[in-house]
Formats: sequence, structure tokens, C-alpha cells
Amino acid sequence: MTKILGIDPGSRITGYGIIEDTSRGAKYIASGSIRVGSDYFPDRLKLIFEGLVQVVELYRPDQMAIEQVFMHKNADSALKLGQARGAAICAVQAAGLPVYEYAARQVKQALVGKGNAEKAQVQHMVKILLNLQGDMQIDAGDALGICLCHAHYQQTAQRLRLGVPG
Amino acid sequence: MTKILGIDPGSRITGYGIIEDTSRGAKYIASGSIRVGSDYFPDRLKLIFEGLVQVVELYRPDQMAIEQVFMHKNADSALKLGQARGAAICAVQAAGLPVYEYAARQVKQALVGKGNAEKAQVQHMVKILLNLQGDMQIDAGDALGICLCHAHYQQTAQRLRLGVPG
Repeated sequence: MTKILGIDPGSRITGYGIIEDTSRGAKYIASGSIRVGSDYFPDRLKLIFEGLVQVVELYRPDQMAIEQVFMHKNADSALKLGQARGAAICAVQAAGLPVYEYAARQVKQALVGKGNAEKAQVQHMVKILLNLQGDMQIDAGDALGICLCHAHYQQTAQRLRLGVPG
Repeated sequence: MTKILGIDPGSRITGYGIIEDTSRGAKYIASGSIRVGSDYFPDRLKLIFEGLVQVVELYRPDQMAIEQVFMHKNADSALKLGQARGAAICAVQAAGLPVYEYAARQVKQALVGKGNAEKAQVQHMVKILLNLQGDMQIDAGDALGICLCHAHYQQTAQRLRLGVPG
């Protein structure tokens, strides 16, 4: 049984989700978002860092998964996102967690079966796979999607090691 | 007497410098750079974070100054720089240091007297103001330049508070 923390960092809202990957499938543990309103950017990074340190202390995940960002259209927003992402990664690395990165199309492929699926389809599959009812915050849903993607690739890797057909 | 840490973050090389701002002017304490060669980006962030935590533990600065980045030409490099910057800022904030940001033109104005000065002029003035001989790493020199800029603005602010003519 592995506890997975998924993170969807942003300069204003950082979503997080925690699932347990068991032999009987994925189980929802928690999800939420860290909203940072301060206008002074270094303070925002501090709040993201400290917020995630608290999440790690509370849920004690074994592994962390995060979406890999390749190219960004706008350099200014890329810089802001990058800083938030750096703060988030350092927060979980401070706790000694290994970090796994997945491209957006890997998340879509794992959850929907199509690398070019719509974002809404990913959110929909997150709710079905984790048996969640009602509305979900988009950032928390994205973070749970990354958790499920990581669980999927870990299971596939294990099946390959064991020689079990997929 | 205030001990100032200046940082010039980069995804490959992060320069740092430490000066003491005394009533008789700025005094060089130390400078150097953290080079991260690992290809796996989260590992690079970890090395930047841990390297700066060590610098802070060793020299115990009171304040941190960093260059403010506005726009970047290339979104991909902006994202990488942003992550390194996020890791660097979190490392010093974890030690409770206040963070001061200065625009590149403020650094040039403070050191050379011209907001559009050449980078080489800034490096030259760093050596003169801190009475340094020989060659200096560019990243460490930039970090020391940010230290000196911060010292300059702090002195100006104090003069204004005391009503002493500049």
C-alpha cells in the first residue's frame, strides 16, 4: 500500500490530493487547495512551501507526483508558475519524498485513455475512479488526477516486473 | 551592523554573496556559487535549496536580497529560472530571513549611477566597492552586486528617517 501525494502548483492556487494505492484499487484520502492572496510574491512562495510541509506532516505520503511543464505561452506567467512549482517541490523534498513527473498527455492517457482528452474528462474520471460525489475544486481534481496517473504507471511497472499480463 | 545575503538564482548556477553593512561601508564576507549538474530537474531544485540552507547556517545573514525578474524572452527558460528562484527564496525564508527584491535597473543605478549600465560595469564596481582583487565568478559578482544595492537602499532609507542630507 502506497500513499501518493499529487500536486498541481499555481502562483495563486496550489491544488493537492492524496490517495492510497492498494491491491484493490485507488482509495481517496484527502484533497484541497492552498490559496495565496498576498501581493508580495516571496510571501506567496512561503505560504505554498509551509502549506505543503503541513500537508506532508499530516498525511505522511510515501511518494509525490507532479505534472511536468514543457512549454508555456507566456514568459511572465511561466516565471510565476515556475517559482510556485519550485516552492512546492522543495517542500516535499524537505520531507525526503521521491518526486515523479508526468506530462499532461500521460495523465490524460492514464485516466481517459486518450493523450489529447479534454480537461473536463480527466476531472470526470477522477470522480468515477475515486467514487467521489458532488462538486470538486478544479485544482484539487487535477492533483488527484496526477495521483491516479502515478498509481497507474506504478502498477504497470510492477506488472511488467512480475510478468503478469496487463 | 547588518549581514546581507545576495542571491542570483539560475537553473544551472546559483550565485551567492555575503557582505556586512557597517557604518564605515560595506565589507566583503564571502561569495560563491552552487552548481547543479543533475539532469533530473527536481534534484537540481533540491541541491539549490539545500545548498542555500547551508550558506544561511554557516554565515547567519540578517536579510536577503534578490533581483526581481519582470519579463523574460523565452517561456521555457523563464519556467526553469522561476523554479530555481522559488527554491532559493524558500531556502532563506525557512530560516526566517526577510526577502528584499530589486529590479536590475535599481542594482545598476545604485552601483554605477545609471539604470542602463552594462553588466560588466556592475561587476567592476563590486570589486572596487568591496576592495576585491583578481577574477571573480560572474554569478557570485552579481549576487554581491545585489547585496551592495540593498545596503545602499537601506542606508538611504535610514538617512531619510534621520533627516541627514545624502
